[in-house]
Amino acid sequence: MNIALLPGDGIGPEVIAQAVKVVEAIGKKFNHQITFKEAITGAAAIDAVGQPYPEETHQVCLQSDAVLFGAIGDPKFDNDPSAKVRPEQGLLEMRKRLGLFSNVRPTFTFPSLLHKSPLKRERIEGTDLVFLRELTGGIYFGEPRGRNEQGTKAFDTCVYSVEEIERLARMGFEFAQKRRKLLTCVDKANVLATSRLWRETVQRIAPEYPDVKVEYEFVDAVAMRLVQWPKAYDVLITENLFGDILTDEASVISGSMGLMPSASIGIKTKLFEPIHGSYPQAAGKDIANPLAAVLSASMMFEYAFGLMDEAKAISDAVNLSLESGIVTEDLAEGDKAYKTSEVGDWLA
Amino acid sequence: MNIALLPGDGIGPEVIAQAVKVVEAIGKKFNHQITFKEAITGAAAIDAVGQPYPEETHQVCLQSDAVLFGAIGDPKFDNDPSAKVRPEQGLLEMRKRLGLFSNVRPTFTFPSLLHKSPLKRERIEGTDLVFLRELTGGIYFGEPRGRNEQGTKAFDTCVYSVEEIERLARMGFEFAQKRRKLLTCVDKANVLATSRLWRETVQRIAPEYPDVKVEYEFVDAVAMRLVQWPKAYDVLITENLFGDILTDEASVISGSMGLMPSASIGIKTKLFEPIHGSYPQAAGKDIANPLAAVLSASMMFEYAFGLMDEAKAISDAVNLSLESGIVTEDLAEGDKAYKTSEVGDWLA
Ligand SMILES: CC(C)[C@H](C(=O)O)[C@@H](O)C(=O)O
Ligand SMILES: CC(C)[C@H](C(=O)O)[C@@H](O)C(=O)O
Repeated sequence: MNIALLPGDGIGPEVIAQAVKVVEAIGKKFNHQITFKEAITGAAAIDAVGQPYPEETHQVCLQSDAVLFGAIGDPKFDNDPSAKVRPEQGLLEMRKRLGLFSNVRPTFTFPSLLHKSPLKRERIEGTDLVFLRELTGGIYFGEPRGRNEQGTKAFDTCVYSVEEIERLARMGFEFAQKRRKLLTCVDKANVLATSRLWRETVQRIAPEYPDVKVEYEFVDAVAMRLVQWPKAYDVLITENLFGDILTDEASVISGSMGLMPSASIGIKTKLFEPIHGSYPQAAGKDIANPLAAVLSASMMFEYAFGLMDEAKAISDAVNLSLESGIVTEDLAEGDKAYKTSEVGDWLA
Repeated sequence: MNIALLPGDGIGPEVIAQAVKVVEAIGKKFNHQITFKEAITGAAAIDAVGQPYPEETHQVCLQSDAVLFGAIGDPKFDNDPSAKVRPEQGLLEMRKRLGLFSNVRPTFTFPSLLHKSPLKRERIEGTDLVFLRELTGGIYFGEPRGRNEQGTKAFDTCVYSVEEIERLARMGFEFAQKRRKLLTCVDKANVLATSRLWRETVQRIAPEYPDVKVEYEFVDAVAMRLVQWPKAYDVLITENLFGDILTDEASVISGSMGLMPSASIGIKTKLFEPIHGSYPQAAGKDIANPLAAVLSASMMFEYAFGLMDEAKAISDAVNLSLESGIVTEDLAEGDKAYKTSEVGDWLA
């Protein structure tokens, strides 16, 4: 197994280091030959070579069986809207060039963390939903985008082709078939032409999956219902920008935001990353919660290698760490808070 | 005072009827001459004249001092993405032609309803935020939009001019000056060209409002923080589509979604409407909660006529109805549920 490591910015390197410990432990226990190759990305890469996704990094990813990604982003770029090169461009370029068209973001609850949620227990207990967010299309990539000559107007373009919608939707139907057989297509078909094409495409292929119930909901309604009653959902499919907003919202309701992993399924490789950001305030302090990165490694064994026992060994270890209170300060309550590296060691 | 009434679809007519009772009662009590003129819109107008926002309705609005609007939308159009005329087009046309560029959506809590929220009490108690959503620009209106000739691709365009951003932002700064002096600019400047123009424009005018603290946050982060800690916000400004999603999300956290009013401030008139939808399932049953429509009438006295006593008389009555349990079935708990019309009569 060739695994590319892209730690990125902020707390990225620290949490990825723990995921690596765990993956190595799994390699030993289950007798897998695992090779890691590290590469730079994000603000770290801009600082080093002036580009957030250098060609060399791309080659490392292409030659890998799976990519473990930390986080990117640095506040020094955020309030400088005119910065020519931004870390996020690297993330987007990487997604596009690796063809990572489907971002799989589960939201589930940990019994021992339910009380951490801003939502009431009875609203969230048992929540188990998964978003499939389209990741290489929509307004993130559409052309034209930019300004008029005078700089008095800016514009972005949202574009979707039937093929892009269909491949994501089919993956959604297949996920639903393996789960509770409910698919929710999230769009804004009452306003957007692209959303109407989404809805039409899903309606067209739905009869091929007669065992899956399909619901169509507007993005604003889903933003409400996710908070009201997240248990109503099973698999949700949506376009890139709606997915960005709704998956972050969903990650909060479970009370386990720092714990949610994600997988990006692509044409050329698969990438696994915690959904949390680069949290620059916590960087270098050995306090960041590594569980989302570690659970991303669990998703890697499942989705990249089809190794369910290995995946489960990791998620079992995470559950045990939660139950035993071997957790970082964000989760420690009165109890001793462990360092990022200590949690990693314990899990490994 | 010339008030245009646009009851619209679903429960719109029923809730607007209660608002009218209350406005009439205020007219009597405070000695105002109030004239109502009703006009059709939405699916009701499509059924009657084939258009969701007929010219005659537009004229009625133009000649009014304020518009009271119910709700529009009918499920018979939603799952027919190819329907040529849709009720929502009427809403968008109306917003555009009346120049209703700023949608003011407050989120606040009612002490007697805190337990209704899906969020824990300590997270929401005292929440008092207001969104200013840009309402006549962005991806809702940008051209080009549609399909390619083969129908295999769809596209939408998001466009913003400096003027559009600036007039909304200035209103945001002025709101903040009258409130807790915190303005949050919500955008996706790490991805979108239009968002970068938003951020730049806000940064440019911010020095003119030195008493207001400005924060810049990405839309995905706000989608999270709204659920985590809504009290962190005071005034939020944002573009049309982000506003659509986030204001609906915000309306849920207070536990009073059925109660939230809104004002749309325009160049030619001002419009007031409950933020809830047309709830076709409840239509005609005299069970819909009229409080959001009634509170929209309260906002009308404040924002269209500058009559604070009248506005307060209405919101006091609403508070009293909540405390006295004179509420519709969505709020009644074990207690007797009152009919829509009974609540209206009581308030009047
Ligand atoms: C950093 C940003 C460009 C990115 C996105 O919007 O996709 C992030 O929010 C995410 O969800 O991975
Ligand atoms: C009905 C729809 C077009 C509308 C919108 O998206 O603006 C509604 O959701 C709203 O927020 O008023």
